Amino acid sequence: MYISKSFIPILKNNPSEAKIKSHQLMLRVGMIKQSSAGIYSWLPLGFKVMKKIEKIVREEQDRIGVQEILMPTIQSSEIWKESGRYKDYGEEMLRIKDRQNREMLYGPTNEELITDIFRSSIKSYKSLPQLLYHIQWKFRDEIRPRFGIMRCREFYMKDAYSFDISDEEALFSYNKFFLSYLKTFKKLNLKAIPMAAETGPIGGSLSHEFIILAETGESKIFTDKRVFDLSIDNAKLEKQSLENMRKEYEQYYSVTDEKFDKTEFEKKVSEKNRLITKGIEVGHIFYFGAKYSKPMGASVDLPGGKKDFVKMGSYGIGVSRLVGAIIEAKYDEKNEVMKWPISIAPYHVAIIPMINKNDNSQLDKANNIFSELKKNNIDAIIDDTDENISSKIKKINLIGVPFQIIIGKQSVGDKLEFKEVEGEPQMIELKDVIKIINKQKEKN
Amino acid sequence: MYISKSFIPILKNNPSEAKIKSHQLMLRVGMIKQSSAGIYSWLPLGFKVMKKIEKIVREEQDRIGVQEILMPTIQSSEIWKESGRYKDYGEEMLRIKDRQNREMLYGPTNEELITDIFRSSIKSYKSLPQLLYHIQWKFRDEIRPRFGIMRCREFYMKDAYSFDISDEEALFSYNKFFLSYLKTFKKLNLKAIPMAAETGPIGGSLSHEFIILAETGESKIFTDKRVFDLSIDNAKLEKQSLENMRKEYEQYYSVTDEKFDKTEFEKKVSEKNRLITKGIEVGHIFYFGAKYSKPMGASVDLPGGKKDFVKMGSYGIGVSRLVGAIIEAKYDEKNEVMKWPISIAPYHVAIIPMINKNDNSQLDKANNIFSELKKNNIDAIIDDTDENISSKIKKINLIGVPFQIIIGKQSVGDKLEFKEVEGEPQMIELKDVIKIINKQKEKN
Repeated sequence: MYISKSFIPILKNNPSEAKIKSHQLMLRVGMIKQSSAGIYSWLPLGFKVMKKIEKIVREEQDRIGVQEILMPTIQSSEIWKESGRYKDYGEEMLRIKDRQNREMLYGPTNEELITDIFRSSIKSYKSLPQLLYHIQWKFRDEIRPRFGIMRCREFYMKDAYSFDISDEEALFSYNKFFLSYLKTFKKLNLKAIPMAAETGPIGGSLSHEFIILAETGESKIFTDKRVFDLSIDNAKLEKQSLENMRKEYEQYYSVTDEKFDKTEFEKKVSEKNRLITKGIEVGHIFYFGAKYSKPMGASVDLPGGKKDFVKMGSYGIGVSRLVGAIIEAKYDEKNEVMKWPISIAPYHVAIIPMINKNDNSQLDKANNIFSELKKNNIDAIIDDTDENISSKIKKINLIGVPFQIIIGKQSVGDKLEFKEVEGEPQMIELKDVIKIINKQKEKN
Repeated sequence: MYISKSFIPILKNNPSEAKIKSHQLMLRVGMIKQSSAGIYSWLPLGFKVMKKIEKIVREEQDRIGVQEILMPTIQSSEIWKESGRYKDYGEEMLRIKDRQNREMLYGPTNEELITDIFRSSIKSYKSLPQLLYHIQWKFRDEIRPRFGIMRCREFYMKDAYSFDISDEEALFSYNKFFLSYLKTFKKLNLKAIPMAAETGPIGGSLSHEFIILAETGESKIFTDKRVFDLSIDNAKLEKQSLENMRKEYEQYYSVTDEKFDKTEFEKKVSEKNRLITKGIEVGHIFYFGAKYSKPMGASVDLPGGKKDFVKMGSYGIGVSRLVGAIIEAKYDEKNEVMKWPISIAPYHVAIIPMINKNDNSQLDKANNIFSELKKNNIDAIIDDTDENISSKIKKINLIGVPFQIIIGKQSVGDKLEFKEVEGEPQMIELKDVIKIINKQKEKN
């Protein structure tokens, strides 16, 4: 693929309307385009990254046995009246009247709709647990949308729901998601800390936010440094193992400013372990028992013959938001270098030929390399513009392509000038380039 | 995966509210669940099929060099006022006021939004052609939604847009999609006929609908049988080759009742070649030149220095609708057997063990076969319920799993009872089962 034919509208300078670095970079390299306040189109570069993140999120849901479904964006107000949240939700809910004058809404979350799906089909404890998820667009009519896709109105989210027979089983489901979330963020090369959280409009008794560290984060966080030494490598998908894992995290004080208590912090965390910094919420999980199943009458037959309301939890990851969050965490603003983990980079490698008028030899060489890389499942882009090599490299660094092949004066014979972003160039053959990139891909 | 743990709510009988067979089957085997009039949730079975169709649609778009983006569902009314369609579109457009009282709408189609994206970035003929597509939920507020997902309100659609410097280049783009659509439907095992069509609210001068034959189809079609003998195997992605291919199709009379002219039909088609039957629209392509680019000011610099409005076309495939259309074409209602092409079947094979109380040996055997199939990328489901074998087979036929392994009295030693849907059972080893299924997968 040639960069000149790709729809990647790059701006010379940071757009003045963008206040945080993810918003700046996403507009700068044409990942998104605003269509109206808090609503964005995803252009090819942004779309590719978001889809790769979505794929990782999906794989980790599938791994713990969550089944994928897809609920619609537009919901009837009826079920929200049943749960009692129709009034509570306030103006953030986008309310719509259809041509028959029925009250509809654009779903900001899906507890009601999934409970309705569950109650119409599942009648017995024998079919439990049920874990269901979907990845769908949602809408929250923020009064002041800002920071690009970090606080926008239409956003892409993975939300999952668990249905269990008892509190004990429900906590087992909760812990599965707890582990799955830590694994998901690890795969995205993010260090996420689970923090005890307020439950807000979702409700319930138990909740954790997953926060990644970023200096530009919106939440102030207070934590014990030792939380970073914990590992999930030994956790198994078994009740006791997961319970132990969660307790390991819970032993360390870790909260956002919402829940911060100075006395408790200073009592529980020795001075040398205290970390006060900023972070971004990328996931949020809730356990709320019968909060929705009771008013909506979602009950199942128990083993003895009695009935009981099913115990539910819900689990969200902001997929579109992660694109911005990862930029906040990985973009070196000063040097204008974006360091996408290779698993979600828009391209694995950029081929940068020096283009001379009346001489196609470098471009031909680039094309050949491109085909060879493609055969080896390496996704490359050719910068075929007539800019000089150093402006090309600057642009590729901004886009965030982890590896670069430069076809210029240095190239002699079969050796190519190859480098990792910000690394030193080395002269190696194409087959070794392929080895290095594929090794990096496997590691991530 | 066990069927007892899957969210596949199967009904004993056809639901009375469903009038056509796709709607009946989809409710019967729990592919979808209605959430409100003309709005559906996709349950695991329906979701799997739809995602597989989406994948094939995507691959064929990528193959002709269309770049994927993603536009939002909610649009501002401003751009629709620019194009002049805001009033024209009538009550089918779902109009929304947000909390700031701004006029918004749920996109029924995206000509305006894509033109806005184009005009803000592309300024020169050098960046043309641009072919862009997205696969996104759309909403049309049908006055009487019916027939399940065939005439619903919220639907999933692939829409692509082409931008070219001249009519000639634009027709080249048009023809690329023409070929791509024929290939897409062929991959889905559908015989689609392109038919000259009215342009309706999209507008323009040239348009084709792609219609598949189905007795229960909504459109009456009048065609020349010889159109079925045409082949696209020799068409190349080159201007002349594509033009010839389209002319080959256009030489035969093929229209829906909208455009039907009895005298012309009888003049152009000899009696023995006349075919009058019913069909379902699964794709629609349009060429409309400067219809949107002119009022919205989307122009580019031409080689000579002048400017001109860019020439556009648009190209739609109803992804969610295809699920229903394929059922209409492939469901044998009398024998209650759904024949999904293997490329989009929810599972490749069903493992059907006879379950006895106090004896897990058959289920253990099923589990082992499942693992072995999984290693070979074959997607299986185990029917672990305690129903008898013949009711299990009936259920699996309804769901539409192309192959079945029955573990019952017949199984001796390493030989398994294996059969294709409606085929004769044969006793073969698992390695041969794998060969047969993988061969079938490759063919499709």
